[in-house]
Amino acid sequence: MSDSHDHERAVVLVSGGLDSATVLGMAVDAGYRCTAISFDYGQRHRCELQCAATVCHATGVVDHRVIELDPTPLGGSVLTDGRSVPRPESATGISQEQIPDTYVPARNTIFLSMALGLAEGIGACHLFIGVNAVDYSGYPDCRGGFIEAFETLANLATKVGVEHGCMRVHAPLLHMTKGEIIRAGLALGVDYAITSSCYDPSAQGRPCRKCESCVLRAKGFEEAGVEDPLLCATR
Amino acid sequence: MSDSHDHERAVVLVSGGLDSATVLGMAVDAGYRCTAISFDYGQRHRCELQCAATVCHATGVVDHRVIELDPTPLGGSVLTDGRSVPRPESATGISQEQIPDTYVPARNTIFLSMALGLAEGIGACHLFIGVNAVDYSGYPDCRGGFIEAFETLANLATKVGVEHGCMRVHAPLLHMTKGEIIRAGLALGVDYAITSSCYDPSAQGRPCRKCESCVLRAKGFEEAGVEDPLLCATR
Repeated sequence: MSDSHDHERAVVLVSGGLDSATVLGMAVDAGYRCTAISFDYGQRHRCELQCAATVCHATGVVDHRVIELDPTPLGGSVLTDGRSVPRPESATGISQEQIPDTYVPARNTIFLSMALGLAEGIGACHLFIGVNAVDYSGYPDCRGGFIEAFETLANLATKVGVEHGCMRVHAPLLHMTKGEIIRAGLALGVDYAITSSCYDPSAQGRPCRKCESCVLRAKGFEEAGVEDPLLCATR
Repeated sequence: MSDSHDHERAVVLVSGGLDSATVLGMAVDAGYRCTAISFDYGQRHRCELQCAATVCHATGVVDHRVIELDPTPLGGSVLTDGRSVPRPESATGISQEQIPDTYVPARNTIFLSMALGLAEGIGACHLFIGVNAVDYSGYPDCRGGFIEAFETLANLATKVGVEHGCMRVHAPLLHMTKGEIIRAGLALGVDYAITSSCYDPSAQGRPCRKCESCVLRAKGFEEAGVEDPLLCATR
């Protein structure tokens, strides 16, 4: 374990999707030296992991750790078991009130815990995660209260937290709409053509354009007033 | 994911050591239907995993999940990397003031997060963990504040927590001395001959009797006024 703690070093959760690509761009732009972390938990949209590597490469982040995760604790979601991915009932995307079937038990808690262990091991004080409470308000672990509670925990759970109280969890997209996220990312030069958002892509990685994640992405690009470069590329 | 939540169902972290064997005995004695969870993270004292299975069997717990854990986020401890295990400077065991070298970054946070995901997946509301703030006061993630913060997080991070506020994290050994733990376990019929505490056992699983964990265990049996059945068995 690193004995030092570095206020300019960050661990960024990178899934290969649009949101985390934007967060990585923001963290790099803010001057943090970033280590990216991705999880291989047998997710059905596995091409995300290739996208995560491409996103890191394009952003100039050379330290990218892919952590294998036993899927047992993540069981019981349509994203991790064999059930079919549901289609949203309306074109506005996922439900704002109910917790959706695509919720994976404790996923962000597990991801942030692993990122926290890595951060302490390498002496980083900052964690970045692309959660969003506007479009994903139905997910308990995409809300501000969850992020605050995790930051409190992080400063009680670790040596560096207890000794210096310096662990910070950044969720810069928390209160942004998808359109705002896309505009912010484009301003930073994020290349959305290399990101993957679909929950149920084809074997070639083409988005289904029907799942809740595809619907949300399309709504975001419409709101931002730009064409999705991913769809241009795969058309 | 189970749609129900069961107030009599618990996930118990079982390492194969003395403390978690006692906790499992306590949870079963209290009437909880228990699922045990252990982690295979390449720990150097791997015979613990066999002990964990034996402990579950002896306690009548048939549902025992061994989760493979990528050791990357746990790096930087003498228990997970190649360094030699330090010997305690005094016969009283580990330091009460400094955070010891055997601290593994964010270990209990990661373990509890995985247990939380499993609990939500199977509909359990209770987590049991054998942390102890008397002998392990130097470890940030063995203190009461950490346990309370994790319980708060668990009720914000999960569907069942948000909807019912019923996630509970039990740490029944928190304020007990090693001697008290051993006496409580013996009263419940816990067989300590099948537990493993040593950080650096021989290839045959024999304890080194010198590491801080062995020293603490010996002190506990002395305090309890009984002979350690493990040492009788391996003598």
